[in-house]
Amino acid sequence: MADMPKAAIVGIGQTEFSKSSGRSELQLAAECIKAALDDAGLQTSDVDGLITFTLDGSDEVGVTRCLGIDDLKFTSRIPQGGAASVATICHAMSVVESGVCDVVVIWRAMNERSQYRFGQPAARGSIPVGGGTGFMEWCMPFGAQFPASWEALTAQSYMHKYGVTNADFGLVSVQLRKHAATNPAAWFYRKPITLEEHQASRWIVAPALRLLDCCQESDGGVAVVVASMARARQLRQTPVGIFGAVTSMRFNHEIISDYYHSADLTHLPIAERVRQRLTEACGIAPTETQVAMIYDNFTPQIFMQLEAFGFCRPGEAKDYIKDGNLEIDGRSPLSPNGGHIGEGYIHGMNLVTEGVRQARGTAANQVADVRHVFLASGVAGAIIGAC
Amino acid sequence: MADMPKAAIVGIGQTEFSKSSGRSELQLAAECIKAALDDAGLQTSDVDGLITFTLDGSDEVGVTRCLGIDDLKFTSRIPQGGAASVATICHAMSVVESGVCDVVVIWRAMNERSQYRFGQPAARGSIPVGGGTGFMEWCMPFGAQFPASWEALTAQSYMHKYGVTNADFGLVSVQLRKHAATNPAAWFYRKPITLEEHQASRWIVAPALRLLDCCQESDGGVAVVVASMARARQLRQTPVGIFGAVTSMRFNHEIISDYYHSADLTHLPIAERVRQRLTEACGIAPTETQVAMIYDNFTPQIFMQLEAFGFCRPGEAKDYIKDGNLEIDGRSPLSPNGGHIGEGYIHGMNLVTEGVRQARGTAANQVADVRHVFLASGVAGAIIGAC
Repeated sequence: MADMPKAAIVGIGQTEFSKSSGRSELQLAAECIKAALDDAGLQTSDVDGLITFTLDGSDEVGVTRCLGIDDLKFTSRIPQGGAASVATICHAMSVVESGVCDVVVIWRAMNERSQYRFGQPAARGSIPVGGGTGFMEWCMPFGAQFPASWEALTAQSYMHKYGVTNADFGLVSVQLRKHAATNPAAWFYRKPITLEEHQASRWIVAPALRLLDCCQESDGGVAVVVASMARARQLRQTPVGIFGAVTSMRFNHEIISDYYHSADLTHLPIAERVRQRLTEACGIAPTETQVAMIYDNFTPQIFMQLEAFGFCRPGEAKDYIKDGNLEIDGRSPLSPNGGHIGEGYIHGMNLVTEGVRQARGTAANQVADVRHVFLASGVAGAIIGAC
Repeated sequence: MADMPKAAIVGIGQTEFSKSSGRSELQLAAECIKAALDDAGLQTSDVDGLITFTLDGSDEVGVTRCLGIDDLKFTSRIPQGGAASVATICHAMSVVESGVCDVVVIWRAMNERSQYRFGQPAARGSIPVGGGTGFMEWCMPFGAQFPASWEALTAQSYMHKYGVTNADFGLVSVQLRKHAATNPAAWFYRKPITLEEHQASRWIVAPALRLLDCCQESDGGVAVVVASMARARQLRQTPVGIFGAVTSMRFNHEIISDYYHSADLTHLPIAERVRQRLTEACGIAPTETQVAMIYDNFTPQIFMQLEAFGFCRPGEAKDYIKDGNLEIDGRSPLSPNGGHIGEGYIHGMNLVTEGVRQARGTAANQVADVRHVFLASGVAGAIIGAC
């Protein structure tokens, strides 16, 4: 039996997800934060903490100024890009539980399609902080210069070991596009695809990834508000408690170019550690949740994370997906908003907001009887649920 | 009476401070972290959290790999440059108190003299994350392009209102160089200056700042290890408890270009808020400590912070300093290591380590009977002391 959480998600907000927002990233940030505060029934003057990504293009001074925030007691940025998106929940939980902050806002806003191309070589924002000593120096000079190329190396190792083909990866795209098709907020609303359409899309990195294996380069902003459970009980929405939120960053691991952890690149040791740590933290395993929001930058990541988080055994993801387990009424419904592949790619954070909607029971594609939701982004995981 | 702290600084480490380290920032980071862990009697495998600045040039993957860290449960980066250096203590305290981490390492390592020039226009690292919407766009195009130029605008407002001259500012340099002269780790060891020498140094931004009003562009690395008080009691050093650690970032404030907070630029409203919040947090006022480690990027910052933190009244810093209060045996000894102006400028973090030495009673220029040390970096403040 899990303890009652001490911190809760009390508000969520987002802009539209598009290919050209027509406004600055700072404005997107301000809009989604305001929406999240409105959702919670909070004022900007209530905010005393801000958390975002090291890669986010808006600074805290600008966000504070745009919104009229009165005074911050804490600001932090997480490295490791979207892989650590769920780590923002861990940061927020920590500062609320330790009493440093009362109301913490997490935001991520990006014009990654119209202002720069996040998926292409040398895209602004694709090089982590610490460029001078950065691990990407082991990829870039050798021709692996963009996210799909990094992902494809690992994917091919997985394909080789388990006899998986790109058509198998396509099952994930078909599933997530099906979900997106009935989510009005999704970029691919009313646009489901068949496996044949997936197979007809052009190669990005053969033989692993086609265009339709990739998440959507999107313009948009997403914000999440976290408060203490005591505060949460006084607010507008049913509190969505944070039962556990954990991170792992193991020796010799990189993020998307994670080629050095061991001789076997077909599994995700960090995600396996997250699973173990999360279950220890709150007594709830990922498989005991009713919805799985799992980071889908590329389809193979879903295969490998399903296995790492215990939904199926190594090499069995293909069959697990084929058997319909990821359907809305399946055993472990995957990203009912359509995920990054179907709804939009706001670097993990739109998976968090959908998780909150599922926990509240207010999602477009609502899963029945949701008690707990699993949030996962490779190096971080969380279990949330209405309290 | 202050409560017993739940988190403590258990180890400190640093490299030499130079103008040309001859090695990478990543190596400096690894060296100072290893030194801090050795000081604490901890292994790299004990480390489960890493905190640094958004501006730090080494990434977490590289640091983890260089040191052989086993697994991290938390990583964060603080924005706002050195002004938020003491905020790293707040981050570390929070994650230890909330139980997310057991042993957190804070590091800052830079070759800001040999690899780039931190004090010059367009220096790498001088533009905050969020460049696209960054507040610096209100300075740069108008000719205020480097730290001394930003600082000088505020300083001139202060000079005008209180009839202060650059020779008055020089009192701070003379004081800190006196301290550095007897600190073997200081760049200016055995090199005290007279006020005449200060006045003979060249203008950087007339009539506010001469060369000797500026901190030292330095190569070097500094690390601090924070653990729970329970863990701290089992370790090698006397725990230096964190009685309080707070941050403030108020509406319409920028960092060093803080020109919009009100019509009166001669005071520091953020620092005033830090003072109030810190005293509320732990019941100890800055003036009740025996050592003051106050961020000295430029001499006028000492004047304005002394006033903001309550050491003297507005406009009285000149007399407070002249009266000898900042001497080692004065009422509020200032940075007995020589500070950023005399020892080196590792972006605030070498002030933290000197504060720890003072609390332990092991400093080169040891103040007598130290119970509490005040750490301040403009937007953040902390009270620490041996427990």
